[in-house]
Amino acid sequence: MNELKVIFHINESNRWKIVLVNITNLLNDVGQDNVNIEVVVNGEAVSIFKNGCQPTECSGSCYGSTNESLLEQMEKLSEVGVNFVVCRNSLKGQSIDENSLPDFVTVVPAGITEIVRKQAEGYAYIKP
Amino acid sequence: MNELKVIFHINESNRWKIVLVNITNLLNDVGQDNVNIEVVVNGEAVSIFKNGCQPTECSGSCYGSTNESLLEQMEKLSEVGVNFVVCRNSLKGQSIDENSLPDFVTVVPAGITEIVRKQAEGYAYIKP
Amino acid sequence: MNELKVIFHINESNRWKIVLVNITNLLNDVGQDNVNIEVVVNGEAVSIFKNGCQPTECSGSCYGSTNESLLEQMEKLSEVGVNFVVCRNSLKGQSIDENSLPDFVTVVPAGITEIVRKQAEGYAYIKP
Repeated sequence: MNELKVIFHINESNRWKIVLVNITNLLNDVGQDNVNIEVVVNGEAVSIFKNGCQPTECSGSCYGSTNESLLEQMEKLSEVGVNFVVCRNSLKGQSIDENSLPDFVTVVPAGITEIVRKQAEGYAYIKP
Repeated sequence: MNELKVIFHINESNRWKIVLVNITNLLNDVGQDNVNIEVVVNGEAVSIFKNGCQPTECSGSCYGSTNESLLEQMEKLSEVGVNFVVCRNSLKGQSIDENSLPDFVTVVPAGITEIVRKQAEGYAYIKP
Repeated sequence: MNELKVIFHINESNRWKIVLVNITNLLNDVGQDNVNIEVVVNGEAVSIFKNGCQPTECSGSCYGSTNESLLEQMEKLSEVGVNFVVCRNSLKGQSIDENSLPDFVTVVPAGITEIVRKQAEGYAYIKP
């Protein structure tokens, strides 16, 4: 079977837990070598990065405690190949400094464009 | 025209009514011979099966009254070819015994994998 | 690059603002000549058209003030090529007269069928 490809779209903060559980279940089911996973984060969901800190201020782990474990889970998933892609428009809308984002995150000009382009490349779409 | 193919994804209980209305409208519009419909149920939405009973306890109709009419509608839709596919991870998460599920339901290891695979096969995706 | 194609699906009124922001960001990012955008409106989201008036009653601008600016935004988007497609089943469900709809809207028998067909034609799907 060819490699599976999927976009997870998240635009509400209260869906983070579900998204991460879904991804974990998918990886456990098919194995990390058999699926390309990209998470596109836009709208209000980018606020998970809101309590981020400037690199000069701390060692990078000063996120709010509620978000901390989610961010740790995201980082672990990124280490097994999951891509986290964040919308610049949404970051601006919430006055979040791109420099404060975790290293494992990629910023794109518009999250919606990313979702359209990836589907055109054959990625499935899931909105958890 | 070739046969249409579509996955309906439901992961929240409060969307059941809408999902079933959507499917009914689709069937009325194009006819049951012209569309393949699969409903993938995961997350919290599997709780519709929570009040199910063991086959030894009743004749199979002892679901809670609130869910009963929805389950009856689902059964009728299954009789005209709609597939209902339920995520095993989600059932385990809610301690729902697979043996208590209605006969018309199919269980898969991970609902998310099913959604990705079906889209790779050309199914459209709808999240009502 | 080939032209991008995308369906935005809206079935809840409280998502209108987000949908219109998403579309605006997409157009700003790729340019209106490089993307085909269709918005499929069904379910409760058709209620944005509820305070519409008969052409005989007013000049077509007597929608409720809360919805007015959204409808104006929609009209402007329609002028740069965005298609707004509304589900007849949903209009009937809310007793909305088709004749009261703004001119830039197209009515289809079933919004869900439209979504399935467009994806079969290669359109991406986004549920904001």
